[in-house]
Amino acid sequence: MTRRAHVHRLPTLGPDDTTALRRAIDVGRIEPGAIAAILGKTEGNGCVNDFSRGFAVQSLKLALAPHVDPEGIAFVMSGGTEGGLAPHLLVFEVREVADPPGAPPALALGVARTPGLPPEAIGRRAQVDAVAEAVGRAMAEAGIGDPEAVHYVQVKCPLLTADRVAEARGRGTTTATADTLKSMGLSRGASALGVALALGEVAPAALAEAEVGRRLDRFSTRASCSAGIELAACEVLLLGNAPGWAGPLVAAHDVMEDAIDLEAVRRALARAGLPTAGQLDAGARGRLVAVLAKAEAASTGRVRGARHTMLDDSDVSATRHARALVGGVLAGLTGTTELFVSGGAEHQGPDGGGVVAVIAVRDGRAG
Amino acid sequence: MTRRAHVHRLPTLGPDDTTALRRAIDVGRIEPGAIAAILGKTEGNGCVNDFSRGFAVQSLKLALAPHVDPEGIAFVMSGGTEGGLAPHLLVFEVREVADPPGAPPALALGVARTPGLPPEAIGRRAQVDAVAEAVGRAMAEAGIGDPEAVHYVQVKCPLLTADRVAEARGRGTTTATADTLKSMGLSRGASALGVALALGEVAPAALAEAEVGRRLDRFSTRASCSAGIELAACEVLLLGNAPGWAGPLVAAHDVMEDAIDLEAVRRALARAGLPTAGQLDAGARGRLVAVLAKAEAASTGRVRGARHTMLDDSDVSATRHARALVGGVLAGLTGTTELFVSGGAEHQGPDGGGVVAVIAVRDGRAG
Amino acid sequence: MTRRAHVHRLPTLGPDDTTALRRAIDVGRIEPGAIAAILGKTEGNGCVNDFSRGFAVQSLKLALAPHVDPEGIAFVMSGGTEGGLAPHLLVFEVREVADPPGAPPALALGVARTPGLPPEAIGRRAQVDAVAEAVGRAMAEAGIGDPEAVHYVQVKCPLLTADRVAEARGRGTTTATADTLKSMGLSRGASALGVALALGEVAPAALAEAEVGRRLDRFSTRASCSAGIELAACEVLLLGNAPGWAGPLVAAHDVMEDAIDLEAVRRALARAGLPTAGQLDAGARGRLVAVLAKAEAASTGRVRGARHTMLDDSDVSATRHARALVGGVLAGLTGTTELFVSGGAEHQGPDGGGVVAVIAVRDGRAG
Amino acid sequence: MTRRAHVHRLPTLGPDDTTALRRAIDVGRIEPGAIAAILGKTEGNGCVNDFSRGFAVQSLKLALAPHVDPEGIAFVMSGGTEGGLAPHLLVFEVREVADPPGAPPALALGVARTPGLPPEAIGRRAQVDAVAEAVGRAMAEAGIGDPEAVHYVQVKCPLLTADRVAEARGRGTTTATADTLKSMGLSRGASALGVALALGEVAPAALAEAEVGRRLDRFSTRASCSAGIELAACEVLLLGNAPGWAGPLVAAHDVMEDAIDLEAVRRALARAGLPTAGQLDAGARGRLVAVLAKAEAASTGRVRGARHTMLDDSDVSATRHARALVGGVLAGLTGTTELFVSGGAEHQGPDGGGVVAVIAVRDGRAG
Repeated sequence: MTRRAHVHRLPTLGPDDTTALRRAIDVGRIEPGAIAAILGKTEGNGCVNDFSRGFAVQSLKLALAPHVDPEGIAFVMSGGTEGGLAPHLLVFEVREVADPPGAPPALALGVARTPGLPPEAIGRRAQVDAVAEAVGRAMAEAGIGDPEAVHYVQVKCPLLTADRVAEARGRGTTTATADTLKSMGLSRGASALGVALALGEVAPAALAEAEVGRRLDRFSTRASCSAGIELAACEVLLLGNAPGWAGPLVAAHDVMEDAIDLEAVRRALARAGLPTAGQLDAGARGRLVAVLAKAEAASTGRVRGARHTMLDDSDVSATRHARALVGGVLAGLTGTTELFVSGGAEHQGPDGGGVVAVIAVRDGRAG
Repeated sequence: MTRRAHVHRLPTLGPDDTTALRRAIDVGRIEPGAIAAILGKTEGNGCVNDFSRGFAVQSLKLALAPHVDPEGIAFVMSGGTEGGLAPHLLVFEVREVADPPGAPPALALGVARTPGLPPEAIGRRAQVDAVAEAVGRAMAEAGIGDPEAVHYVQVKCPLLTADRVAEARGRGTTTATADTLKSMGLSRGASALGVALALGEVAPAALAEAEVGRRLDRFSTRASCSAGIELAACEVLLLGNAPGWAGPLVAAHDVMEDAIDLEAVRRALARAGLPTAGQLDAGARGRLVAVLAKAEAASTGRVRGARHTMLDDSDVSATRHARALVGGVLAGLTGTTELFVSGGAEHQGPDGGGVVAVIAVRDGRAG
Repeated sequence: MTRRAHVHRLPTLGPDDTTALRRAIDVGRIEPGAIAAILGKTEGNGCVNDFSRGFAVQSLKLALAPHVDPEGIAFVMSGGTEGGLAPHLLVFEVREVADPPGAPPALALGVARTPGLPPEAIGRRAQVDAVAEAVGRAMAEAGIGDPEAVHYVQVKCPLLTADRVAEARGRGTTTATADTLKSMGLSRGASALGVALALGEVAPAALAEAEVGRRLDRFSTRASCSAGIELAACEVLLLGNAPGWAGPLVAAHDVMEDAIDLEAVRRALARAGLPTAGQLDAGARGRLVAVLAKAEAASTGRVRGARHTMLDDSDVSATRHARALVGGVLAGLTGTTELFVSGGAEHQGPDGGGVVAVIAVRDGRAG
Repeated sequence: MTRRAHVHRLPTLGPDDTTALRRAIDVGRIEPGAIAAILGKTEGNGCVNDFSRGFAVQSLKLALAPHVDPEGIAFVMSGGTEGGLAPHLLVFEVREVADPPGAPPALALGVARTPGLPPEAIGRRAQVDAVAEAVGRAMAEAGIGDPEAVHYVQVKCPLLTADRVAEARGRGTTTATADTLKSMGLSRGASALGVALALGEVAPAALAEAEVGRRLDRFSTRASCSAGIELAACEVLLLGNAPGWAGPLVAAHDVMEDAIDLEAVRRALARAGLPTAGQLDAGARGRLVAVLAKAEAASTGRVRGARHTMLDDSDVSATRHARALVGGVLAGLTGTTELFVSGGAEHQGPDGGGVVAVIAVRDGRAG
């Protein structure tokens, strides 16, 4: 028996809209018992008080409960559909198939979860280590031994709220910050360093606690981390290509050096078999299954020397600006707005940049 | 004697930053007396309470006053540098030169201003007609007889505030709306229909008052209108190519059918002599002087069938989302974020799309 | 047998926090089967994309489902806890008691629901009539014949989203507006006129459809209407005092003429037996069970002649400003921030003002 | 010769509206040469990218320039008119009068300015000491020797922008934070500790640098600090009562223990001769010249035990919520919305509270 990964991109009409998912189950296109993870772009602000993520998870669990125990599924909702980004779900299935494993490696995935993290662990070394350990388990599950075959690692991690900070204080301990919005960045950063540690991108000795959120030149080229109010542990979804998997899907990635690095996106698409001059044509677009990217406002306040105002805008958080921008860059090239762009790329690629990963159907002629 | 248009793109560090302008004057790169118009992207919200526009105009006038009477200059500030858009100025000069007019037509421009509009005229036929008449004068000034040679018409127009609405009510008259944010759209729309009327894109008979803001299928393919609290009349800046002008600059444009219509941008760049496969390289980018584009959230709530959430977001106005999105599409292709993207494209191109214009230095080999 | 109304004010830690409710059920303080309605202040933006309301309702239903069919309960979530407002629930129970009815009338309540409203009915006469009919049923259920004994009528009503507007268009019909935020105001206004009609505050003949949202001088002095994305029908909760009810609770109300009309609040408190010079002292505060009030930005742009900026703020919607303001006025006087202040008071009291209702424990000495 | 302080409260229609000021000068009600300071509430967001403050200062200087050199005047604009707060100016004049000094001490004032602060000084001990020194000079100028006679000290101080942070980094030094919004709080806090130091409220030894923004239990009961992008030094305006001053005006203050501490406001009013039971009546309101107060979201996340959501709201900054709330408390009691409420009360009174100061015309019967 061989495993085969399926990826379904489903539109949603709101955080609680599970219509497309339920229909896909009803017609047999999705097997609930095979679902390993569901990623979603939901339409809240993507910041502290974004309840669209928790609402979506609650709604998805309600929709799946008649079919399967949802506790075994990783739910990773990323808030924020700024600019033209379209709310949607990416449902990852792992099925057992009779097919012999394909000659070329195919899309492989693994999921894992850390134990629950107390408020005082968030944004600190304890979180780094917990995530690194979970990434290792996810690689093992995916059957990927070589870190180079890993193309994307999604981590969903907790944040601090005023109440969580107060609760920790009540126990006589301190949190990494009392600023709830800032805690999202620290939590994402600690998770990313956990990925970097697991993938051998950063040496353990280099990870003194004080570096979370500071030494931004230490990063993972494949981590994408997203913080949310709705969970207390870290969820990991790891994607790569591996020989033990069947099917026509492949993953590829590149690293955007800054938010407008179109050439990196073109390289990632080309590696997945989708070369572009201008926008993907309809045929190529039909083979594009998912685009997953990080977005971040460069801490220098500049994009290629020109000033940006994302960090000085007290009305709209920088993460919202950055998602809209990167979403525009990707949508221009791919011709679709169903893009999983998540914000806040601390330690997730170079300052102002980040990973862009692609899942595509291998070209029939090549496969 | 021949005229020659110069266009200077200058960065700003804030709405009141005129450092680059003053330095350019000091070193003789800009002749204050030759300035016909200054367009600027300023970093406010681009909506009703965006004081960055008025602050910029006041600051520019203070900087220019020692050199020239600023009242003869058209100031058109467009608020909103969402996503990665960089605050900057575009200074348009018209100089008399001894050169013989070039064989090919070169960049030509004209400016004009309507009389002050009372609150009750805003968003109505009176505004349409006033703008149409001003566009006609701007064409005459630019020496452009054929509307086809017009590539971009920028209009800056007033909006309604709660006080202006109350003032009109106090005189026993009514305004087109009492909703101040909505008045921006109506004012932009009426201005755009004025451009369409002047360029022969819409017949006078088709312009019943009730159509402003309603029949969005009637539009100008070259209008870009921006509303601001800081003025009471409409300012017009018209760009095209004309034989009586010298110099290496040329204008070109195309119409984006939707917010992610990268191919339209590629066509506009190609017409200006900047063909692209992927992002502009450094050499081509050096010849790109200005990009001017409209951004708008499609009223259908969709971009190519995928839902967008711009119109349902009560935290961030749809115009802000749309500017960020189109800015991303343009920045990916051009490799720069100094882009004059203005929001609110009512009657300015198809629903959800709009004009994209380019000013570039003609390729030496071709010229 | 006599009925007795119980009102429980319960804090929440988030839209999905039902801890206090479940604990009250567990210890027998709340009988799930007796719950008639749950009002809640939730912490979203209170505007179109406020998912905190729907998330709260879904969470409450999940919490109650083991005990009672939640479909018989009216859930009325009001989004927006601006300023100092505290997220909380007001749980209304109706129990049968053996007590003889008290000599003085006691708190009485009735709930009702309209049929589902199609998008084209929202903000129009069809909604007005449906709500009026439901208010009549709620009065009958409460055993209140005289409209003067009604002190507060809460209506939760639907709004239009981009998708609902498109759906109606697809069927060839039109909606009252295509502006989703504006639809909230029209829906609240139509609901309020329905209350006014039912309570005899406005004559049926005076209710031409065009008046919804226009003739703001026609209003109900006791309506409080709140629009939300999470429902398609209108929910009505009506409060008053009636002789057939037992228990120590009484309701009272007054009408704030503007947002800072502290004297109206003092009168309402005094009528409920809580006279104030400055802030309520601890004893009186202990007898204060609930405060329910409307908040609205005066359309004149003024509060007692001084300019307010709520209507010109494109970053924060006017309803958010107004709730924060009225919340401050009420909190200063009552000494608590657990206040049910809901925004958008179209046809709900005079322009810029609205109802303020109080539920209190009758003074022992008087009872 | 004796000095007499005049205070004029003037409405504004926008940040650049100087109509009322110019009119008062034209009719001789204000002597430009006597103006010592102008405080203003302007209608921006009160945060980093609030250009309404700089726009107002530039506009005021332009209006005053024909009459007096504006460089000698302290301009202290506080952004943010949330809730019902009305944009307005408070013009402080100091005139020489022939009157013998009144028997009772009258309103006295002093202004001072620190040297320009480099980015690395902001939020640190260097700023604390610079402000303390300036407060000492302002006391001397006002002729106030006893710190107890000081009722209010307004400080306007700089903030960090992305560019200022980068500039410091370029010189190889570090700033207290790279988070621009956070820098506002640190700058306010350092200024407040400077006031506390000067007034003897905190001992010099207790002011280790690390305490700025941390030990919030060390504070000034009379400081009100406001940060703005438009200045690089700190401006100080100090108010008190002193025997060498004539005229009917007196100052008084109290400290709000939390944001809804109405009783503290009542005490401050009473000390200024305006006792209240309920809202000030028209007569008393006519004697109320100015109310100046601080607003802050309690870091505990609670107001008297009830949760507030100000610190978890990523759409609207906590300072905006807090100003709206305190503005509501004050407006309910005073019956006016022309209130100088400024946000961010770090080290300015107890956590969640702050100073409330009143300037009033002494009651004729008492004086």
